[in-house]
Amino acid sequence: MAIHPLWDKYPIIQKELLETQKIMNQTVKIRNKEMTEALQLFFQSGGKLLRPAYFLIFTKFGKSPSTKRQYQYAASLEVLHAATLVHDDIIDNSPVRRDQPSIQATFGKDIAVYAGDFLFTVYFQLLAASSQDVSSLERNALNMKKILIGELDQLHLKNNTKITIKQYLQHVQGKTAQLFQLSCYEGARFAGSSLRVQILAQRIGYNIGMAFQILDDVLDYSSTEETLHKPVLEDIRNGNYTLPLIYAMQENPQAFSLLETKDNLSDHDIKQLVAAISHYKGIEKAQALATRYTDKALSEINKLPDIPEKKQLIDLTKKLLHRED
Amino acid sequence: MAIHPLWDKYPIIQKELLETQKIMNQTVKIRNKEMTEALQLFFQSGGKLLRPAYFLIFTKFGKSPSTKRQYQYAASLEVLHAATLVHDDIIDNSPVRRDQPSIQATFGKDIAVYAGDFLFTVYFQLLAASSQDVSSLERNALNMKKILIGELDQLHLKNNTKITIKQYLQHVQGKTAQLFQLSCYEGARFAGSSLRVQILAQRIGYNIGMAFQILDDVLDYSSTEETLHKPVLEDIRNGNYTLPLIYAMQENPQAFSLLETKDNLSDHDIKQLVAAISHYKGIEKAQALATRYTDKALSEINKLPDIPEKKQLIDLTKKLLHRED
Repeated sequence: MAIHPLWDKYPIIQKELLETQKIMNQTVKIRNKEMTEALQLFFQSGGKLLRPAYFLIFTKFGKSPSTKRQYQYAASLEVLHAATLVHDDIIDNSPVRRDQPSIQATFGKDIAVYAGDFLFTVYFQLLAASSQDVSSLERNALNMKKILIGELDQLHLKNNTKITIKQYLQHVQGKTAQLFQLSCYEGARFAGSSLRVQILAQRIGYNIGMAFQILDDVLDYSSTEETLHKPVLEDIRNGNYTLPLIYAMQENPQAFSLLETKDNLSDHDIKQLVAAISHYKGIEKAQALATRYTDKALSEINKLPDIPEKKQLIDLTKKLLHRED
Repeated sequence: MAIHPLWDKYPIIQKELLETQKIMNQTVKIRNKEMTEALQLFFQSGGKLLRPAYFLIFTKFGKSPSTKRQYQYAASLEVLHAATLVHDDIIDNSPVRRDQPSIQATFGKDIAVYAGDFLFTVYFQLLAASSQDVSSLERNALNMKKILIGELDQLHLKNNTKITIKQYLQHVQGKTAQLFQLSCYEGARFAGSSLRVQILAQRIGYNIGMAFQILDDVLDYSSTEETLHKPVLEDIRNGNYTLPLIYAMQENPQAFSLLETKDNLSDHDIKQLVAAISHYKGIEKAQALATRYTDKALSEINKLPDIPEKKQLIDLTKKLLHRED
């Protein structure tokens, strides 16, 4: 089994993530061999396993029992994330996910609908197996609901040049911050950490999630296909107007009138729009907002008790959010 | 709010189903008004609410507390059913569901993917709110997994003229019997009925579900669009080979060679195939198998304790499965 090289520096978390991955691979085994293999491949194709990782790191701030149940919980978070990715790829018509053909590209959209649903059931199963009380399931249900409302918001705002920063941030919260927040909080709670740590965990997860998604949206404009291992400039093509574009549009809506007048953007159109985003400093501004979320996360992490894992948490968060200073 | 006329004869269940429907309507309220209205319309467009109804009837065999939690549980079963229908309509490209345009026809497939996902989260939320212990959630998770495996099986068997009766029954079990079985069992268990009643409830639900789905598949061949309130002869067109066709193909595979040789069946082709199914008594044979499941369900119902609701249960089951003798 392959695990992302990000974890080479953190051998304890790496070992725990391998346990987590093992559980993920086991629970997707069904009599449909093709589907089993596709999902196992998906799990092994180099995802960073960030949500289980943050969950596991936060268990260290409690009694950290290292039981099977802990890994089941960690696995459930990644499986939920995978379920949403499989369905996102249907909506976005994505041919590639993590350098591999996406499930929808391999099996078609019909099977991808059920494959995503199947992953929701695996998530649910892992969660029920790992939870001792119903309250964790209630929080998860609410969390999943907010994620889906975020996805629906995003669809609703597609191709809408009037999208505001507030609307964008609201859907980022649902789409990404929600699950990071839950992962950190549930880790702290699972291990019975103090209420203060639990509250900090929640805030830290939220701010990491916000910064992470904004930076992800920035990379779609600022990176290349080679470094990103997926197509770039996809968001504008798909009508998903993210922060760099929104900031730039606010400076000069006229410069982006193409978006209103043309239904299918040519490569030349995209080039012109990207030049305008750059001219109006959309990328820098988006990066600056991400930095504010990152700083907030780091300052909250500083308030955590001084255990060895705290340094790791700072280190990892800086690395993840490109703040290796 | 509209409720199916089937329940006019059963005023207590009817009242409880209205409570259940109220909860369903409340829990799908989100800031996306269009989606809220579409889902509420979906819930009110004359579904029979069979799964919550069987759940509620089986609570009568226990202490039957009639609390809000009971209606939340009942609602969760119907919401899960609705989630699978919304996604099924994407796969089958169905324009109509319950005399209304389907969600996918109204909003497009993209929104329908998330709308179904959203219903899964509502199901999950209602279940977490109504369950007192994690074991019910574990059973539900396993049940949902089996439903999805049934759906994947069905896709896998699409356009496969070699499909066996065993394979067909296996996917019917996953697709339909599973949820009827769970609804009956959970009702009995929720109200703290005896273990004997719980086991009977499970068997009764299973047999009702099998008979119900086989008859549903028969109706696609034997009914008209007017009485069925949905298009007929859809299964064969969609490559879903159900029991009447399977029985007939076993008699004379040659008579169905069109299915192998032609990619798009014309109306004339369909007519010819339906005539062949009729000639080889596919419909009668399928009906006979459904009758065996119905008889089994009725004989298990007879073993239940003699409370007033037992007569209702017999009456309803006969009516539902067209056995009004």
